[in-house]
Amino acid sequence: MAPSVVDVTAPEGRVKDVRQNGDDGYKTTISASYDSERSNRVLRTFRCLIADLCEQFKGGHPGSAMGMAAMGIALWKHVMRFSPRNPNYFNRDRFILSNGHACVFQYTLMHLVGYKHMTLDQLRSYHSERTDSFCPGHPEIEHEGIEVTTGPLGQGIANAVGMAMATKHLAATYNKPGFPVVNNKIWCVVGDACLQEGVALEAISLAGHWKLNDLIVIYDNNQITCDGSVDLANTEDVNAKMSACGWKVLTVDDGNEDIPAIVNALEQARAESEQPVFINIRTIIGIGSKVAGDAKAHGAALGPEDVANIKRDSNMNPEEHFVISDETYEFFAEVRERGRRYEREWVELVEAYRKEYPDIAGEFTRRIKGKMVKDWRKIIPPKEAFPTTPTPSRKSAGLVCNPLASEMNNIMVGTADLSPSVNMIWKGKVDFQHPDLRPACGITGDYTGRYIHWGIREHAMAAVSNGIAAYNKGTILPVTSSFFMFYLYAAPGVRMGALQRLQTIHVGTHDSIGTGEDGPTHQPIELAALYRAMPNLLYIRPADSEETAGAFIAAISATESPSIISLSRHNLVQYPQYSSRDGVQRGAYVFIEEKDADVTLIGVGSEMQFAVEAREILQEYGIRARVVSFPCQRLFEGQSREYKSEVLQYRSGTRRVVIEAYAANGWERYAHASYSMTTFGHSLPGAAAYKYFGYDSKLIALRVKEFLDNLKAEGIEDLDGEFRELNLRSH
Amino acid sequence: MAPSVVDVTAPEGRVKDVRQNGDDGYKTTISASYDSERSNRVLRTFRCLIADLCEQFKGGHPGSAMGMAAMGIALWKHVMRFSPRNPNYFNRDRFILSNGHACVFQYTLMHLVGYKHMTLDQLRSYHSERTDSFCPGHPEIEHEGIEVTTGPLGQGIANAVGMAMATKHLAATYNKPGFPVVNNKIWCVVGDACLQEGVALEAISLAGHWKLNDLIVIYDNNQITCDGSVDLANTEDVNAKMSACGWKVLTVDDGNEDIPAIVNALEQARAESEQPVFINIRTIIGIGSKVAGDAKAHGAALGPEDVANIKRDSNMNPEEHFVISDETYEFFAEVRERGRRYEREWVELVEAYRKEYPDIAGEFTRRIKGKMVKDWRKIIPPKEAFPTTPTPSRKSAGLVCNPLASEMNNIMVGTADLSPSVNMIWKGKVDFQHPDLRPACGITGDYTGRYIHWGIREHAMAAVSNGIAAYNKGTILPVTSSFFMFYLYAAPGVRMGALQRLQTIHVGTHDSIGTGEDGPTHQPIELAALYRAMPNLLYIRPADSEETAGAFIAAISATESPSIISLSRHNLVQYPQYSSRDGVQRGAYVFIEEKDADVTLIGVGSEMQFAVEAREILQEYGIRARVVSFPCQRLFEGQSREYKSEVLQYRSGTRRVVIEAYAANGWERYAHASYSMTTFGHSLPGAAAYKYFGYDSKLIALRVKEFLDNLKAEGIEDLDGEFRELNLRSH
Repeated sequence: MAPSVVDVTAPEGRVKDVRQNGDDGYKTTISASYDSERSNRVLRTFRCLIADLCEQFKGGHPGSAMGMAAMGIALWKHVMRFSPRNPNYFNRDRFILSNGHACVFQYTLMHLVGYKHMTLDQLRSYHSERTDSFCPGHPEIEHEGIEVTTGPLGQGIANAVGMAMATKHLAATYNKPGFPVVNNKIWCVVGDACLQEGVALEAISLAGHWKLNDLIVIYDNNQITCDGSVDLANTEDVNAKMSACGWKVLTVDDGNEDIPAIVNALEQARAESEQPVFINIRTIIGIGSKVAGDAKAHGAALGPEDVANIKRDSNMNPEEHFVISDETYEFFAEVRERGRRYEREWVELVEAYRKEYPDIAGEFTRRIKGKMVKDWRKIIPPKEAFPTTPTPSRKSAGLVCNPLASEMNNIMVGTADLSPSVNMIWKGKVDFQHPDLRPACGITGDYTGRYIHWGIREHAMAAVSNGIAAYNKGTILPVTSSFFMFYLYAAPGVRMGALQRLQTIHVGTHDSIGTGEDGPTHQPIELAALYRAMPNLLYIRPADSEETAGAFIAAISATESPSIISLSRHNLVQYPQYSSRDGVQRGAYVFIEEKDADVTLIGVGSEMQFAVEAREILQEYGIRARVVSFPCQRLFEGQSREYKSEVLQYRSGTRRVVIEAYAANGWERYAHASYSMTTFGHSLPGAAAYKYFGYDSKLIALRVKEFLDNLKAEGIEDLDGEFRELNLRSH
Repeated sequence: MAPSVVDVTAPEGRVKDVRQNGDDGYKTTISASYDSERSNRVLRTFRCLIADLCEQFKGGHPGSAMGMAAMGIALWKHVMRFSPRNPNYFNRDRFILSNGHACVFQYTLMHLVGYKHMTLDQLRSYHSERTDSFCPGHPEIEHEGIEVTTGPLGQGIANAVGMAMATKHLAATYNKPGFPVVNNKIWCVVGDACLQEGVALEAISLAGHWKLNDLIVIYDNNQITCDGSVDLANTEDVNAKMSACGWKVLTVDDGNEDIPAIVNALEQARAESEQPVFINIRTIIGIGSKVAGDAKAHGAALGPEDVANIKRDSNMNPEEHFVISDETYEFFAEVRERGRRYEREWVELVEAYRKEYPDIAGEFTRRIKGKMVKDWRKIIPPKEAFPTTPTPSRKSAGLVCNPLASEMNNIMVGTADLSPSVNMIWKGKVDFQHPDLRPACGITGDYTGRYIHWGIREHAMAAVSNGIAAYNKGTILPVTSSFFMFYLYAAPGVRMGALQRLQTIHVGTHDSIGTGEDGPTHQPIELAALYRAMPNLLYIRPADSEETAGAFIAAISATESPSIISLSRHNLVQYPQYSSRDGVQRGAYVFIEEKDADVTLIGVGSEMQFAVEAREILQEYGIRARVVSFPCQRLFEGQSREYKSEVLQYRSGTRRVVIEAYAANGWERYAHASYSMTTFGHSLPGAAAYKYFGYDSKLIALRVKEFLDNLKAEGIEDLDGEFRELNLRSH
């Protein structure tokens, strides 16, 4: 396909392969057309632009953007394959700025290479008060040309690993001899900070394990973080660490000026066929300014004097701002042209592929468009197919999800090393693995595989899954799984998925004190409060198999949201006579109706049984109780006021008590009182743990009765929000 | 002091130093008294005990405990310096089981070496329904002899790094020539899983950077996790990675039987003076059982047949359970005796030290007892000393915390690379660093330093700080700092601190959309909901400098809780006429009273200004509004019902509206309505971001007025918990 587009000279010795001797048979094309003086002028123009952009509103991150100027020119002009006029063409190389605070670097390059929406006017909206800006303080996926939202350090590189997995998986699934319809690269820039974050270290380990040679991480090694020298907090041998993790390591000594050496390294990386590549490029933060090489260059404008000096040193007029010469625009003009060619060649390739392989090409096109298989709902077992005997909802999840995963090849299911616990394995599943692992250790799998062993890396699982989902929206639907408690480890990744409206389904089992012996470290108490408060996310806690079916329907339907499906380790009573997958879609619904009820018991997920049983006991006391099932607060919030009132019966005199083995926080919106947890859990067998904390239907009924009696005795009609916690025990 | 207690032979070649040639001048004492047959019988007894303990209630984690038997004997009998009869003597070596699921390993050793409370009866309570068990499913700090609660993988090793820091810091501060009053070691066992978790990788990097040679990590390398072979998800070169991180690496090939080789490695590690040590010990999970070397040995009882076979193979009676021969007890008897000696020698040493250095010994003793300096409250500036002009509360925090840190040498303050932003640097602060760093890169500091550069490692910052706090409760009070949003990265560590009631103070700045340009990735919306729901934790959001003083007073007073103090990036109006540090201690208090008020505006932290201003505007509408300041829900929950009613005026007809730029979740307990966030934030300058989301006092007043008008128009007296969100804009 498209030939290697390198027109620079890279003298020997400026790029070093720290593991091998650099002799991998790859030779950079040497071209006489490389004009170092012109490149040099563009480099300086770029840096002055960055300085101006941060100066205009006295804020932003100029230092690393200036230090990465040569790297930006090398990658964006010479090496990366993309099409500025059609930023979303499918087979483009993906660019991820993991050090997202340096976003002005990317915005400026986007302007220079000619992204239509990134006008100079827009570029100048960086750090302005304009609410229509495409240039927020960190790159945001909403804006054309941005692959993922980055900023929280370490997330971007994890996303990049996910994109490289998606590339590998789709290539292995759809490419045919002579038809490499998926062969893009993932270019990810990281700073010193990203490489310290745990989530990055987890993702790095995975990329090496999977030998994701489509991934190239470019390390802007300026040895400066906010506090000063990196040596303040990190003196490890980064290159050796990356090598130990299975990465090919290249270094470039002069990342400030030596564009040819950088191009050479990038092209070597592109040609790498065995390993992900780490290019360690030494740069100087804020180069050219008087705070060059200093932390002061990181996160503040340089000041007018310094900016003027930088311009003088660059042979530019210090009185003029945002100056971009015609030469500069011309310098990048070829990028657009080449981009069009990449695009055209790919379209032609896919056309030919369609003729040769019409069926698979049809599926490929459907996947690219992000369309689900039709009638996926029919794959889910009907209510009648579920066991009526007590069943753990983690088992129910398997009954629902395994056929989906088996039949919908857009689903990739993974687990953070809890395969035996989460029941996500379907018959015939193939592991996502590098095929070479097979002979080495008896492990089966290849890149077509759709079952992912994440290892014990919950945070990377979520963050990398975001990258899989973002590779091309709707093409792959990642399903992750772990104990619900450990979605606290994954939380920053889950949040980034919610912020970006990336569809992923997180299956969190062992979701209550019913988890049992593993004790308080494994028993979530407060975690649901986070996920119920997190915008754009569905936290769904189904009560039985039928509701679990409803939870998956809601999660798969929510193409603009991640979901967490929260499941029990222990057996749950099944309520086929009451439970409803359709009810789940409304967030809450009447489970057991009762006219002129004294009290509504809100039953939730793994603790539904207590509500249903307590209702029966309350009847013996002559207290009329109805039961509402409440699997998802966010879905309920989306209902009409009338529906909400129908379910909750505002101002009917009916008191509402929620029963859940979590902290009550947030339930106060729906209930007058709670039977909930006020402490962490306790290590006991599941049933005993419930008992220990007073989760006993008789006791609950008694406490509800007392609550109602007390209100009467106190003559309180209007509780006026004076919330009551009914469980007496507080450990 | 105490001589090295090694009585085993370790033939050459069984311990390998993978970096050097093993010739570090250290030689293991070779003793003729080592009885390999006796050791072998004890080894087998130990394994049978583990099998029985997991069999009795058909649950637990037998595999790794059995695989680590030889390691346990080597460490607990031969190398570790501790006193079973006085598990808390100060200068003991600390033992941390980072793979906490293998706790039965530790409980069994505690029983065998003679921890008084760990009777056989207690040992057999493992996985039972006994609520008085000292043997929960993961080790818990509440129980004697357990240094930290572990279980969530990667936390224990991070805690161990903190303990090694505490050792280094206290040794550097208090040891004098000839008086090594602090010279314990930290022994930490990890499994394959811990080494994959990001928090562990962050902590490992830090330990190497600080050259914490007091730390020895013993890697139970059984190459098995829940999913099967480690190769499924991890094929990196672990030893090379550890070396790259600055660790000395030793390996033992046969960790199943070769006790002498393990002892030799442990003693080499103890003698290491330059680096933390990683001992990679190859073991077989569930050794001796029919599922040896298989993931099936990990987390389930082995079954009666297998257990019987193991006993037969061990020359034990398969019909008998929990058999511990006298020989076995005698084997470990010397440990108690030696422990008493260590203890005695240390007490004598401290006595002599007291005579030589009475002042410093006095302080040392006070620190050991965990006593604060008297009158620490007086160190905090009085209200009058604060600026009355608008001040960011992150600046207020510096005004309060810097003098505390300067004068209270039990405080160690750290930051996740945000020194310029969080204002935690006090005049004369010394960095915690290895002194050798100084010549290398111009960085100052040594182990007496109390300012910690954590790098960009929020999770490790929290988890390692837990280890510092747990080293000896009350001796060191760690203060961490970062942007509040990134306490989501740190959350699993913060949770473990709360679960263990370890006092740490987390200073989270940039706590609202007022953070500004950094955008939604940096603007917390939902995070407070997590921390307000987390048991044992104080989440405090002060409104001005005086309340910030109150927040630190609350946090320092809460010796059984971690706290998060949540602060603004931007200027906050100061309210010396209303704000009260004492009020903060009650969680909420009346800020501005108003008789027969129509509405109570609840102002919180960085958004207090909107409440105060809206009140004034409402007065123009003829609406009487009072203002309540509500910095901490948990502290308020601890108040009497009367006080709560006084503040919130239940059933007075006064409506309550909370104004905060967070998700409302949880405020429904205190308010009828909220002016809150329903979406993620937006990248805009701080003031513009507030405006964008309708945080404008006039608009807020208008919405509150409409709310009150609507209730009247609808004739609603009793809202009955039908919560209203008053801000119209929903992005």
